[in-house]
Amino acid sequence: MKLIRFGEPGREKPGVLLEDGKRLDVSAAVNDYDEAFFGGGGLDTLRSWLGKNAASASVVSNDTRLGPCVARPSKLICIGLNYAKHAAESNMPAPAEPIIFFKATSSMIGPNDTVIIPKNSRKSDWEVELAVVIGKRALYVSEADAMDYIAGYCLHNDYSEREWQLERGGQWVKGKSCDTFAPLGPFMATCDEIKDPHNLRLWLKRNDVVRQDSNTSDLIFNVPTLVSYLSQFMSLLPGDVISTGTPSGVGHGCKPPEYMADGDVIELGVEGLGTSKQNVISYR
Amino acid sequence: MKLIRFGEPGREKPGVLLEDGKRLDVSAAVNDYDEAFFGGGGLDTLRSWLGKNAASASVVSNDTRLGPCVARPSKLICIGLNYAKHAAESNMPAPAEPIIFFKATSSMIGPNDTVIIPKNSRKSDWEVELAVVIGKRALYVSEADAMDYIAGYCLHNDYSEREWQLERGGQWVKGKSCDTFAPLGPFMATCDEIKDPHNLRLWLKRNDVVRQDSNTSDLIFNVPTLVSYLSQFMSLLPGDVISTGTPSGVGHGCKPPEYMADGDVIELGVEGLGTSKQNVISYR
Repeated sequence: MKLIRFGEPGREKPGVLLEDGKRLDVSAAVNDYDEAFFGGGGLDTLRSWLGKNAASASVVSNDTRLGPCVARPSKLICIGLNYAKHAAESNMPAPAEPIIFFKATSSMIGPNDTVIIPKNSRKSDWEVELAVVIGKRALYVSEADAMDYIAGYCLHNDYSEREWQLERGGQWVKGKSCDTFAPLGPFMATCDEIKDPHNLRLWLKRNDVVRQDSNTSDLIFNVPTLVSYLSQFMSLLPGDVISTGTPSGVGHGCKPPEYMADGDVIELGVEGLGTSKQNVISYR
Repeated sequence: MKLIRFGEPGREKPGVLLEDGKRLDVSAAVNDYDEAFFGGGGLDTLRSWLGKNAASASVVSNDTRLGPCVARPSKLICIGLNYAKHAAESNMPAPAEPIIFFKATSSMIGPNDTVIIPKNSRKSDWEVELAVVIGKRALYVSEADAMDYIAGYCLHNDYSEREWQLERGGQWVKGKSCDTFAPLGPFMATCDEIKDPHNLRLWLKRNDVVRQDSNTSDLIFNVPTLVSYLSQFMSLLPGDVISTGTPSGVGHGCKPPEYMADGDVIELGVEGLGTSKQNVISYR
C-alpha cells in the first residue's frame, strides 16, 4: 500500500494511492497515520478494509494538496554523513558509528508545499534522503530482527541551514529544525512494495539541474544497522521517522559553495517512493 | 495554578495541586495538558472551571502516581552549558550563544518514577534544571515579548549518559534520549506563581549528599533570551518544553568523575516548583 495524507495543513485526512494513480479517502476506516495507527495494527486494519471497501470508497481529487505522508511522530531522527562521498564533500571523516541528530517535527510539511528560507539565512541547502517509518516499539533490537520493526519507507528532503548547523555553537539541530525544512512524501510505501531498500536510486535537481544522483547501495550504515543501533540508545515508537542520510551533491559541498535562493525550484525522488517538488521563497 | 497529571503511565489524567496539598481531578474540564490545551486557552478555561467547581471536584489520593506534569510535547529542547561553573567543570568554554540540543520525548517519565541505567551504560549522570513550558506558538519573538509566550515552569532532571553524549560520534542526542532520562514535575506552576524565574534556588542530592546547589540567577542566558533565541530557528509550539541547563555539581565534573549506580536515590528541587525523587536501577 501507498499511504497518503490529504487536505489543508494540520487537518489532513488519511488516504491511499492506488497503482492507477487514483487516490482514495480512507478516513472511514482509520483516524490518521500516527503512533496509535502503526502501533495498533492499523496497516492490517486498513488492508482488510480496502479489500472490502476500495470500490466504494470516496475518490480524492488529484489536485488536492498532499500533507506529510505520516502524522507528526514523536521523533524525526536523522543520520549524518552516511554516504562516503558526502562525508568527503563535507570535509569530515566517514563516521566510525552512526551520527544521530533530531530534526524538530514542527519542520514537517507536505511533499509539494512551499519551502521558506528563514529570516537571516545565508546558507540554506538541500538533502534528498530515504526515510524509514517505524512500525512497532523498538528497544534493544538486533540487526537480524530490525526489519520486522519497519512499517515502510518514504522520500524526505532534509533541508539544512549550514551556517546555523555548523557555525552557531556546537550541535546541528539549529540548522535542521526550521519550519518547512522537512517535506515528507508524497507517500509512505509499505515494506512489501520495496523489495530492497538498499538498491534505490535517489536524485535531486535544483532548477532543472541534477545535483544529487546516487543509490542507497552506497549507504555506510544500512537500514537494519541503523534501527538496531538507535534502539540501543532509546525506544523507537510506532510512527517515528528515521531519515538515513544524504548522498553527495549538496550545495555546501560545491566549490565554491552554492546555496538556495528565492525562486528556486527543488525536485527530488527515490526509486519506488515517488517524487516531490518544492518552490522556495525567502521569509517575508 | 499547579498542574499535575496522575494515574498509570500513558493513561494519565489532568489534575491540579491546591495550596493545602489536596489534588483535584480536572478531567471533567480538560482532556490533557497538551498542545491543544495550551494553544486553545486551556489555562483560562481551567481557571474559570475551578472557580465554579473546585469544591465539588473529585479528590485524587496523595498516593496516586504522578506522571510528567505536561503531556508529551512536540519538542523537549535543552540548553547546554548555561551556567558558567558547569561549563568550567565540563572543560568547555562558556558558550558565546546558547547551545541547543533535543532530548527524545520518549524519555519523559513522572517525577518519582524509577530511572533505569540503560544497558551497557557506564557513565549515567544527573542534571537538575529549571524547565519552561511554552504557552503559544512562538516564531521570531523579541526578548521584550518573550515572557508572554510562557505558560509556566517545572522541575526537570536531564539525565545524561556522558560516554554516549561525548564519545560516540559528534552529537549529544545519543546520551540524552534514553528511556526514563527525563523526569518532569511534580507540577507545572503557571507564571503567576513564579514571580522571578531568575532567582530560584535549585539543588540535587545523590544518596542524601548534596551534589548541586545553585540559583537560576547564575544562568548565562536567561529565560526570555532563550525563548527569543530559539524562535529565530524554529517555531516553538504550545506545550513545548525548554530545559534551561544545569549548574555545576554533575558527576562527570567530579575529580575523579562519579556516575550513578544501581540502588542510587536521586532527589532534587527548584524553589517554588517542588521536589522529585528517583530510585535508580540498572536495566535488567
